[in-house]
Amino acid sequence: MQIAILGTGMVGRALGSRLAGLGHTVVMGSRQAGNPAGTAWAESAGPAASAGTFADAVAGADLVILATKGEHAQAVLGMVGADLLAGKVVADLTNPLDFSQGMPPSLFISNTDSLAERLQRAFPEARFVKTLNTLNADLMVDPGRLPEPTAVFLSGDDAAAKALVRGMLESFGWAQIVDLGGLSTARGTESWLPLWIRLWGALGTASFNLRIVREGDA
Amino acid sequence: MQIAILGTGMVGRALGSRLAGLGHTVVMGSRQAGNPAGTAWAESAGPAASAGTFADAVAGADLVILATKGEHAQAVLGMVGADLLAGKVVADLTNPLDFSQGMPPSLFISNTDSLAERLQRAFPEARFVKTLNTLNADLMVDPGRLPEPTAVFLSGDDAAAKALVRGMLESFGWAQIVDLGGLSTARGTESWLPLWIRLWGALGTASFNLRIVREGDA
Repeated sequence: MQIAILGTGMVGRALGSRLAGLGHTVVMGSRQAGNPAGTAWAESAGPAASAGTFADAVAGADLVILATKGEHAQAVLGMVGADLLAGKVVADLTNPLDFSQGMPPSLFISNTDSLAERLQRAFPEARFVKTLNTLNADLMVDPGRLPEPTAVFLSGDDAAAKALVRGMLESFGWAQIVDLGGLSTARGTESWLPLWIRLWGALGTASFNLRIVREGDA
Repeated sequence: MQIAILGTGMVGRALGSRLAGLGHTVVMGSRQAGNPAGTAWAESAGPAASAGTFADAVAGADLVILATKGEHAQAVLGMVGADLLAGKVVADLTNPLDFSQGMPPSLFISNTDSLAERLQRAFPEARFVKTLNTLNADLMVDPGRLPEPTAVFLSGDDAAAKALVRGMLESFGWAQIVDLGGLSTARGTESWLPLWIRLWGALGTASFNLRIVREGDA
C-alpha cells in the first residue's frame, strides 16, 4: 500500500518506520516540504520512504495515518483539504489532550463527543477509524514487547475502512483487536487516557497496556 | 470489623453478603428502616447481618461502603450527616452515570473533576477511598471468577484509609491492586466507565475486567 503519515513526532515516526519495514511505500507529511524531521526520517527509513507536505503525502495514499497532536488534527486535515480527503481511509491515532493547565492533562473534548467524531463532522467524506490511541508509540507498532497479548480497539462507521485498518494492526502483531462499533465509541477509548496517564505515574513506565480478561475464556 | 453498606442494589447486596461471609458484622442502610430489600437481604445473610437506616448503618461502623447510584450518593451521605461521617473511612464504589439521555450513559461529572472529589468536598472530615467502581458487582467480590488475575484501583488522600480498603480487597482475592495516588486520580477510574460500557456491548458480557501488562514483567 501507499501510506501517508501526518505528523513527524514519535507516533508518526514509529508508524512510518514500521510500515516501511513491512514493505509499504510511506510518505511522511508535514507543514512545509523540507521539514527537517520529515527529511531526516525519510533518509533513515529506506528507499520506500519519502517526505513532503501534508497534501503531498495524502495524494495517492491508500491509507492515511493521522498522528499529530490532538489540538492540531483538524487544522492539519484542513491543510490537506476536503477534496483530497474524500474517500480516504483515515486511521485517527490522536487524543484530545489539553496540557494548558499543566500535568496531568485534561481532555479538550470528552464525554458527550469525541475528537474522532468532530473530525468526521468536519470532513464528512473521509472514512475515519479510531485506533491505537490507547497506548504509547513503541507498543503501537510492536505489541510483542509485552509478555502477554494485550488489547487494541477499532471504532468507525465504515466497515471496509475498519477492515483495512485491522489488517494493518494484524501486520504489527496485534491479536486482541476489539471492534467497539461505530465512531462514537471513540468516546470510550479517548476516555481511557485519563486512566492511562495515572497508570503511567503509578507504574513508573509508559510501556504497559491493558489485556481484556473475560469469564469463561480459556 | 463492623461495616456499613449504603445502598440495597446489586452492588450493596454483593458486598454485604461477601463481607458477612468473611465474618464481619454488616449493617445495610437504606432510606427508611424496614426497607424490604434491606430486610430481605439481612434475613438471607446470616446472624451477623442486619438492616436499618443509613445513619443506623454508619453509627459504629469501622468502614462505610458507598454503593448507591452515583446520582444519589451525595444525598444519601447527607441523610447520614457530616457529624456521623467525620473520621469514617468511606469506600466509594459509585460512578457518575447519567442515563437521562438514554443508552449509553454519559457522565454527569468528568474530566476536570470527579464524583469522589465532589463528595470529599461536601464531607471534608470523611476519609474517602475510590475503589471497585471499574467492574461489575459479581467480580468486585470474587475476582477468581476470571481465568487470570486482573486489576483494581485505589485513589485517596488518606494512607491509613487506603490501607484499610486494600485489606478488604485482598480478603476478596484481589492480587493486582494498583494505588493510583490521591483522590483526584478517581478522575481516571471514573473515566474508564465510557470504555467499560462499550466493551460490555462489544464483548456481549459484563463479566470481564482489565489486566495490566507491563514490559519486563515475568
